[in-house]
Amino acid sequence: MKCLILAAGRGRRLQSRADSKPLLPLLGVPLVERTVRAARAAGADRFVVVTGYAADRVEAFLRDLAARLDVPIDTVRNPEWDSTENGRSILAAEGLLREPFLLSMADHLFEPALVRDLLRAPLPEDGLCLAVDGDRDNPLVDPGDVTRVCRDGDRITAIGKGLEPFDGYDTGIFHCTPALFDALRAAGSEGDTSLSAAVQWLAARGRARAVDVSGRFWCDVDDEPALRRAEEALLRRLRGKTGDGPVARWLNRPLSIRLTRRLVETPVTPNQISLFSFGLSLVAAALFLLPGWWALALGGLLAQAASVIDGCDGEIARLRFQGSDYGGWLDAVLDRYADAFLLAGLTAHAWQQGGGPWPLAAGFLAITGSFMVSYTADKYDGLMRERGGARFRMGRDVRVFLIFLGALLDQVLPVLVLIALVMNLETVRRLIVCRREPGGARGGADVVADRARS
Amino acid sequence: MKCLILAAGRGRRLQSRADSKPLLPLLGVPLVERTVRAARAAGADRFVVVTGYAADRVEAFLRDLAARLDVPIDTVRNPEWDSTENGRSILAAEGLLREPFLLSMADHLFEPALVRDLLRAPLPEDGLCLAVDGDRDNPLVDPGDVTRVCRDGDRITAIGKGLEPFDGYDTGIFHCTPALFDALRAAGSEGDTSLSAAVQWLAARGRARAVDVSGRFWCDVDDEPALRRAEEALLRRLRGKTGDGPVARWLNRPLSIRLTRRLVETPVTPNQISLFSFGLSLVAAALFLLPGWWALALGGLLAQAASVIDGCDGEIARLRFQGSDYGGWLDAVLDRYADAFLLAGLTAHAWQQGGGPWPLAAGFLAITGSFMVSYTADKYDGLMRERGGARFRMGRDVRVFLIFLGALLDQVLPVLVLIALVMNLETVRRLIVCRREPGGARGGADVVADRARS
Repeated sequence: MKCLILAAGRGRRLQSRADSKPLLPLLGVPLVERTVRAARAAGADRFVVVTGYAADRVEAFLRDLAARLDVPIDTVRNPEWDSTENGRSILAAEGLLREPFLLSMADHLFEPALVRDLLRAPLPEDGLCLAVDGDRDNPLVDPGDVTRVCRDGDRITAIGKGLEPFDGYDTGIFHCTPALFDALRAAGSEGDTSLSAAVQWLAARGRARAVDVSGRFWCDVDDEPALRRAEEALLRRLRGKTGDGPVARWLNRPLSIRLTRRLVETPVTPNQISLFSFGLSLVAAALFLLPGWWALALGGLLAQAASVIDGCDGEIARLRFQGSDYGGWLDAVLDRYADAFLLAGLTAHAWQQGGGPWPLAAGFLAITGSFMVSYTADKYDGLMRERGGARFRMGRDVRVFLIFLGALLDQVLPVLVLIALVMNLETVRRLIVCRREPGGARGGADVVADRARS
Repeated sequence: MKCLILAAGRGRRLQSRADSKPLLPLLGVPLVERTVRAARAAGADRFVVVTGYAADRVEAFLRDLAARLDVPIDTVRNPEWDSTENGRSILAAEGLLREPFLLSMADHLFEPALVRDLLRAPLPEDGLCLAVDGDRDNPLVDPGDVTRVCRDGDRITAIGKGLEPFDGYDTGIFHCTPALFDALRAAGSEGDTSLSAAVQWLAARGRARAVDVSGRFWCDVDDEPALRRAEEALLRRLRGKTGDGPVARWLNRPLSIRLTRRLVETPVTPNQISLFSFGLSLVAAALFLLPGWWALALGGLLAQAASVIDGCDGEIARLRFQGSDYGGWLDAVLDRYADAFLLAGLTAHAWQQGGGPWPLAAGFLAITGSFMVSYTADKYDGLMRERGGARFRMGRDVRVFLIFLGALLDQVLPVLVLIALVMNLETVRRLIVCRREPGGARGGADVVADRARS
């Protein structure tokens, strides 16, 4: 599937932020790169980008992007980019588009799921599908600037900026047949060279279908307020969805997102953040070894700070499309070591305060239980995902928060006992929950190779 | 794909072991069930079984099997089972077989990969494919009893018991078109109602193809020596392939297989064995807490015994087709707890002998390192599988063996230090090896959800 991206315009309203709008960085990634990446994630595997304003720089950037992503990107120039509507940019690419294709603006952000919805809908012969947002209260939309759509079932009946009545917004993302080119010429010969005019021309002939994508994320970045809304929306999307526990959701994530907003503009990498957070945990564990409340409390604060910072690596990786299997794995392995050292530090602290072997036993069980909760997490999370529904997640966020509280309140032994109890009981609970699952007893000779793992 | 299984014969040569040969249990599972399961694993999804001798009992067993496996099994009786050759049994099923089908004898064991090889080969129109073993030295074959095959390329030129010269063995596993029925009638009208005669009839017309399956496991269970050979072969197949470490391969596995041979005939389940082995490890850990060499050495012996027994659960599950995701997972979780308690017991022992906090630090690092090696095993093993090739595997077998040696030789602290060093260095090595992997830096926004796991 080819994807046509219109990147010819100048974007005067954002000129103060970047000379060329397609190259405007949004949370560390230029707008046109975001469009290419999102379309690729939805299935597009070749790109045609129409350039105009600052064409040399945009094309140089796209050559570099094509190499980085290992995806073919052809460019076409629209010399009339400044004097005509955007339909002329589409016509400039006609020679490269003989099959149905995806069409997006370079300054429209969208999630891949929106495009997948669009591609699933049947494409009218000699027509097009437009992704329409039926949520008239979508806070990301600028009501004064957006193109409106009127629908009859899944047929578009009218499209235009001032349209009244209307029941949806034009997201600017289309699935088109090459019939669009004829429609553009027909509408152009009637005096309007805009894409909307061509859609109107097709709609009048019953060949423009609306695909409802209400609830999916999309955003048109036209001016400063829209840019800020888009940033907020991208940052907000970092919350939830990732199986955050309660402390992560209500405390760590809001703080880490604030930090991420700053860090994403710097050259720091996600793996560097993972390592920094790990180092901070080691310092915290070392502080636990010192006598006295001050060192203990400072260690607790550092441990909690490390837990907050530990959220930034994944957030930055997602914002910058730097996510990797290895990064996630390294982060998880370092977290396990950090947990172990923090609990060992607390155990040593409690032991120095007296109590003979009992603080050691509590510490051992706390370390073991914490490991087991992480060790069983993949299997348990997979099962819970299949079942769906909300659930309380007993993970690292809660563990470190308990360590933080215990250190701050100088209640080290009670916290070790609590962690030991909660984590081991949670492990046993998971063993029981997963056993009850119908799939739990699934047979098959191939599966058993796993038994030998150690 | 339907699969026809011939289970009409009596099996006089094995009468002392079971009255009906298809129901003869081989390492806990009746022969005909092994055939059905192996064919199903290779892709067969409907079965037709021809019964004869003891038909009521065989059919009752197959009804139960169909319900257990949730797979349709039709049965057809061959009333002439005692007076004719096996071709008549095939003809009895003609009404149920309108499409190409798989054909096997109820007393032939085979691995699913053999059938997959057979099904991949093109099937001659109006003919059949026979899986032929070209390994004339196959120790599982009884040279005096096997049906021999002579080939020209992939064409069968002759087939028969005493054939000379010959270059392969008839495995008794066929991929047939319904043309086989006409061939059986044609050969029968010439006086020979055996399947071999029909194959010979088709071979004379160039319609019998040989598919070479040399090296694949198959075995014809006709008499006591063949039964013993089959048992040995199935047990031998439990070795290797499962990522065993050196101690598992050279010490634990040979012992556990001996134990499995006994246990597989009893009603004990794999999960019961996992729990028993875990309990034994707990007893060993408790013995480590007692002062003196005797308790220490006994604990070491019990720990090593538990490690051997821990191999039996997977072996029995494989032999009885009782493998399950849950079983493998339960076993792994219990192993982690067992490791932790054994090392904690050793740590307590070393601590009681003096040395202040240093034995505690060594014990902590040994426990943490052991966990980390298990925690990183899935990812690392997956990567190594992709790369292929042999590798030294530093896993639980080595860990428990070191514990055993340390206890026996009363060298607890050195062993803790050794385990701490080896396990943590191995974890760091894995982090480095996986980072170097080209796939290690694979990008993509979807992947990063993993980062949030804890």
